[in-house]
Amino acid sequence: MAFLTELERVADAVEGRLDRLLAQSLNPAPLGAKLGQAMRYAALGGGKRLRPFLLIESARLFGVAEEEALPAACALECVHCYSLVHDDLPAMDDDAVRRGRPTLHIAFDEATAILAGDALLTLAFEILSDPSTHADPAIRAELVLLLAKAGGWQGMALGQALDLNPERQGFSPSDVADMQALKTGALFRFACEAGAVLGRAPAADRAALRDYAASFGQAFQLADDLLDAQGDAAALGKAVAKDARRGKATLVALLGVEAAKARLDALVAEAENALAPFGDKATKLARAARFIAERRA
Amino acid sequence: MAFLTELERVADAVEGRLDRLLAQSLNPAPLGAKLGQAMRYAALGGGKRLRPFLLIESARLFGVAEEEALPAACALECVHCYSLVHDDLPAMDDDAVRRGRPTLHIAFDEATAILAGDALLTLAFEILSDPSTHADPAIRAELVLLLAKAGGWQGMALGQALDLNPERQGFSPSDVADMQALKTGALFRFACEAGAVLGRAPAADRAALRDYAASFGQAFQLADDLLDAQGDAAALGKAVAKDARRGKATLVALLGVEAAKARLDALVAEAENALAPFGDKATKLARAARFIAERRA
Repeated sequence: MAFLTELERVADAVEGRLDRLLAQSLNPAPLGAKLGQAMRYAALGGGKRLRPFLLIESARLFGVAEEEALPAACALECVHCYSLVHDDLPAMDDDAVRRGRPTLHIAFDEATAILAGDALLTLAFEILSDPSTHADPAIRAELVLLLAKAGGWQGMALGQALDLNPERQGFSPSDVADMQALKTGALFRFACEAGAVLGRAPAADRAALRDYAASFGQAFQLADDLLDAQGDAAALGKAVAKDARRGKATLVALLGVEAAKARLDALVAEAENALAPFGDKATKLARAARFIAERRA
Repeated sequence: MAFLTELERVADAVEGRLDRLLAQSLNPAPLGAKLGQAMRYAALGGGKRLRPFLLIESARLFGVAEEEALPAACALECVHCYSLVHDDLPAMDDDAVRRGRPTLHIAFDEATAILAGDALLTLAFEILSDPSTHADPAIRAELVLLLAKAGGWQGMALGQALDLNPERQGFSPSDVADMQALKTGALFRFACEAGAVLGRAPAADRAALRDYAASFGQAFQLADDLLDAQGDAAALGKAVAKDARRGKATLVALLGVEAAKARLDALVAEAENALAPFGDKATKLARAARFIAERRA
């Protein structure tokens, strides 16, 4: 499958750049090396790097070379990785396995996991605001603003707070969808919008990418819930059926498996339709939506 | 004491602006209000707002009006408040009282404290990159870069990691000073440099402010350690003698109380000397250094 090859090639490029960006964090004296090691453990060696892929491919629509989009893509991945580290903490989702390895607070300790998450979040903004990321400070400042809004009190952090809300068990399908649009959707939306910002895209193109990202995000979450409900822990590299055990209503539980699969197909079609203005240039983004809907791990 | 009146006036201005900035975080639906309430609990209703004061007074040296420096000052305070919330967590310093009130994870819960800290850190970058903070995107991007460096893997987060290092007990006086320059010094340095950035200060003035901040930060920490060793929990609004109980070597423990007091006097003099290029305009910054050395709470 040529798409998978391309996804893996971009993932390798992201891994390589993150490795370089995080190499410096090992520098501060032996006494302080643990923090950098923990940051590297959290950010390197795993993940499909879907969010960086979306950012790079969105930017490519507007003639931005992959190399030019790579720093912003790495900043986004730092935020994603920090969120996984904090969500896995005992006080949050209390997960022991992630990407087939012990979670960070198990491999290191809880204090180091909290701090490494904090430092990865902070690093994201350091990367975005660094002149090497883009020569135009207006672009850098806009990327920072977009990522802060996507990650913070009105975005991902709020989504996680809603997911932990004790009233979560009584959420309606639309409550669950709203929560997921924040918890996982916000970073996908940032990925596509950041590509548009880097490419100085016209407002209409940016809006089309936002629509694509909204459908993509919902499809991703629905596929994730289907995998959690039906999946194979070994293939996924993490525990399955977690939501059911925690009494968390997912859309799959609320709609039923068959209706959820039909909805997933519809979302992929919506994502593809949103890309119409870009024609053949957006083939890889369309394939990405199909890929996440059909993935088995 | 006129200085204290001025400090309190600025603290009120910071409190008012933070209140407005955080009011919006209560908006997202009743289900999500808890996160905003926790952010407000952490950021409002306490603190001397020393870091915002330094930022505002540093900016004023270069003709920047207080109102123009207030957003950046609030962003800095958000980072300070997030660091207190995360440092107080059970896995970190495990503190139950802060500013005379239960710490956030006691008043709310641990998951909410982790998330509210994350959201406050993210909000700091949202504020700095917002066009209302400064019309020039180059200034906004530079402030983001400076704050990210001050707060992250080579700044405050590294300092906290060093403070938690089990080898911490064997730290030499210079190890302790290095650790504190990161853990508490980095944000004081940002405060003064951010003022210089807002005021487009010449490099020499910026360097002078960095020197001032370095001495100020050391004096602040030494005074804090003296208060911890000798202080009154009721007046401080937090537990005392914590470091000794945890077996953490402080400079006071390593140098002895008398030598520590002499060093504190020398640091205040150094801070005052660094301000020489600014003449009478820097009186309030000089008073601030004297104030923190002499404070009893």
